[in-house]
Amino acid sequence: MMAHDLTPCDADFVARLTADLPDGVLRPVSAPYLSEPRGRWHGVAGALALPRDVEEVAALLRACHAARVPVVPYGGGTGLVGGQLAPDGPAPLLLSLERMTSIRAVYPSENVLIAEAGAILSDVHAAAEGAARLFPLSLASEGSARIGGLLATNAGGVNVLRYGNARDLVLGLEVVLPDGRIWHGLKRLRKDNTGYDLRHLLLGSEGTLGVITAASLRLFPRNRAEGAALLVVDSPRAALDLLALAQDRLSGMISACELIGGMGLAFLAETMPQVRQPFAQAPDWMVLLDIGAPDGVDLAGMLEAVLTDAMECGLVTDGLIAQNAAQRAEFWRLRESIPEANRHIGAVSSHDISLPLSELPRFVEMAGPALAQLGAFRINCFGHLGDGNLHYNVFPMPGHTRADHEHQRDAIKTCVHDMVHGLGGSVSAEHGIGRLKIGDLERYGDPVKLAAMRAIKTALDPMGIMNPGAVLRRD
Amino acid sequence: MMAHDLTPCDADFVARLTADLPDGVLRPVSAPYLSEPRGRWHGVAGALALPRDVEEVAALLRACHAARVPVVPYGGGTGLVGGQLAPDGPAPLLLSLERMTSIRAVYPSENVLIAEAGAILSDVHAAAEGAARLFPLSLASEGSARIGGLLATNAGGVNVLRYGNARDLVLGLEVVLPDGRIWHGLKRLRKDNTGYDLRHLLLGSEGTLGVITAASLRLFPRNRAEGAALLVVDSPRAALDLLALAQDRLSGMISACELIGGMGLAFLAETMPQVRQPFAQAPDWMVLLDIGAPDGVDLAGMLEAVLTDAMECGLVTDGLIAQNAAQRAEFWRLRESIPEANRHIGAVSSHDISLPLSELPRFVEMAGPALAQLGAFRINCFGHLGDGNLHYNVFPMPGHTRADHEHQRDAIKTCVHDMVHGLGGSVSAEHGIGRLKIGDLERYGDPVKLAAMRAIKTALDPMGIMNPGAVLRRD
Repeated sequence: MMAHDLTPCDADFVARLTADLPDGVLRPVSAPYLSEPRGRWHGVAGALALPRDVEEVAALLRACHAARVPVVPYGGGTGLVGGQLAPDGPAPLLLSLERMTSIRAVYPSENVLIAEAGAILSDVHAAAEGAARLFPLSLASEGSARIGGLLATNAGGVNVLRYGNARDLVLGLEVVLPDGRIWHGLKRLRKDNTGYDLRHLLLGSEGTLGVITAASLRLFPRNRAEGAALLVVDSPRAALDLLALAQDRLSGMISACELIGGMGLAFLAETMPQVRQPFAQAPDWMVLLDIGAPDGVDLAGMLEAVLTDAMECGLVTDGLIAQNAAQRAEFWRLRESIPEANRHIGAVSSHDISLPLSELPRFVEMAGPALAQLGAFRINCFGHLGDGNLHYNVFPMPGHTRADHEHQRDAIKTCVHDMVHGLGGSVSAEHGIGRLKIGDLERYGDPVKLAAMRAIKTALDPMGIMNPGAVLRRD
Repeated sequence: MMAHDLTPCDADFVARLTADLPDGVLRPVSAPYLSEPRGRWHGVAGALALPRDVEEVAALLRACHAARVPVVPYGGGTGLVGGQLAPDGPAPLLLSLERMTSIRAVYPSENVLIAEAGAILSDVHAAAEGAARLFPLSLASEGSARIGGLLATNAGGVNVLRYGNARDLVLGLEVVLPDGRIWHGLKRLRKDNTGYDLRHLLLGSEGTLGVITAASLRLFPRNRAEGAALLVVDSPRAALDLLALAQDRLSGMISACELIGGMGLAFLAETMPQVRQPFAQAPDWMVLLDIGAPDGVDLAGMLEAVLTDAMECGLVTDGLIAQNAAQRAEFWRLRESIPEANRHIGAVSSHDISLPLSELPRFVEMAGPALAQLGAFRINCFGHLGDGNLHYNVFPMPGHTRADHEHQRDAIKTCVHDMVHGLGGSVSAEHGIGRLKIGDLERYGDPVKLAAMRAIKTALDPMGIMNPGAVLRRD
């Protein structure tokens, strides 16, 4: 807010900061920090700050607050909506948490782990595993995404159905507020009703209300037995009915339920022929059902029973049940190769949407014909069926490129998002708003909610220094 | 905030409201609305408003906002911290949601139910059951507590271990903000990253930031098979080790894990001899372990295996496994009779505390001797072990009454709360702050968090009309 009042992070300011902070905290910004995975924006920044602890973060924010210098917090740089860079406006200080990577503590008997914001997700996985526990947040970028960014964007991923979104895995936070004060909120409690839930306000606020420096995270018992099935269905409607049947039979044991469209398999055949196709004849739709349980549960038997029942009532026409860990891994490799195949083809427009579960089939049925009115496209629809979260991505026909359709991108996006909104869905299921979807938030967001968001932003960040232009438009 | 600027809900104001709203919305306040379960306070109020829909709630708040008249939202009146009445200050309008009781919709295929704020919890249970689903929020007052109050206080209860606190069961909210604007946020989505999470800010804000008028709630598949075991342990430490062993074996199947202290059994024997004691010799500590799973899982067999293992490694010295639903119900009746026995005895001081799990045994070991320094008391320690949530209640010795110890109440409370705080715990695990624990929040709360709470309160309720004096002290 009030971006016109902000002061750029210029040489004078950097010189002052450099004098006040230990050697090595302030650095020149190198190119990778100013780009983002989809190549839509190039960022500006006056300097890079690499604090080593929460006190240094606090000192940086105090200085920025006093001088009205904007701050863009930076995690692993994997965000897909441009939340991690400022393409214009007064040059900000880029504040990367990459030197705060420690796992401060693991409490196996409490199923709790405390990680600093710069810890990479896969390192948190390893630390949990080292204590014979599971940290279930799992997504494609887990080798480079950092905890701070994952929490600031309330990341999703494949295990949300069973374990919740990133926000649901957080018991407490350490946060530096915009004026440099530190909120010491690293509780390890399952129940704590002492005042407003600041934790959930910061989670998902995309660096616009403060900087998360550490979090206490929930761990879970590891699944002693795991299983997976790849099931052929006729339609998303049948896929949902199958999920309901599986939930009835397998209840809390279902870890993931992924929908895979036939176009994804075709893209794999076209661009990554080394990935083995599971069925001789490529199906229109498949469901990957993944389950986990303690010892003593006959998972394969239970999956067999689900498959038999589902075939008997006509929901499933063919299916494979993983006979061992290697086969289960192969099913997952197939699922996880699809985003890569998408990149090879090159999408015209990608959509991270969610729908009320019962509206999801109708959306798929309606969206294809509606887009066909705009032109000839290939649609790869896949995603986290159990969460109602689809990655509904629109590609050029063979022989064409995304550049051919550049002029249609906005119309495609609006067509998809209008339909999603009309069905009660969300135009950003798991990626956030960042800078990419500010217009969408203004178009589809509840105006009373937006006004409340602005009031909260002004209350906690009166100078408007925190990630200006992300989530809320600059004045 | 700024209570000196508030205007009482006087005859003039009531007359204006009465003229502007349909017949029957405004009523005189009757006595039950001005008392609370623990009898600590008597409330004041200028009138009772009984709106029938969200528009009437909005009209009421618009008028109160314009005239700076305070509003106290009222659910089932079961809160234990005085959040539901104003004992002093300008007389508020008491706004009861009791006529907004409808279940607006049930979506079995989505596992979602939309309830208005006045719906009684047991009616929501019944509606979920009618759709062959489970709404897992479960607590002693479920026959009178209303959804709005349960969500405004982020209620806990016995199933938190498996299904989370009340806030974790909410997908969306309809809320009237303090100035009468309606936030239409009744989403039915599992993933929605479009802006700040206002939902979690309102949940647990105890009526100080707005009025929840409806919520979309998560349902779950019912457990086809259920089981329970009552296990004798030597100490809370052994109880926690037993829980860890059970989690390792039973993972996501554990619905509840309750700790029962021997004093609770003694109180039952003394005041409710009709409740059957499970063991010939009353144990010092027991654990009630409750599990649920889909069909096809041998629950009794799994519980037997846990019992055998736990006895072999010396964690459990005796145990009963429910052989049928009636026995399971009897175990639960025992657990649920303890609060009633407590009321018969009459506590000097009750504490709703939570601790990091690994610190819980130390707390129990330290608190008894520390209280003994203050005098001779009987301590009934029981609660939701899996959540680290103890109800640690201090009673007079036989032959004495709570009145004999009135002068020691503050010292007892401070002794317990100081110790809980020192161990990283919470002095309000599931009951909230209300008016009872404002001093505790100021003493133990993080000052930066408190300042942020005040800034948010001022931003969303600039006139300070919403439940003034609850959660945050009036200026």
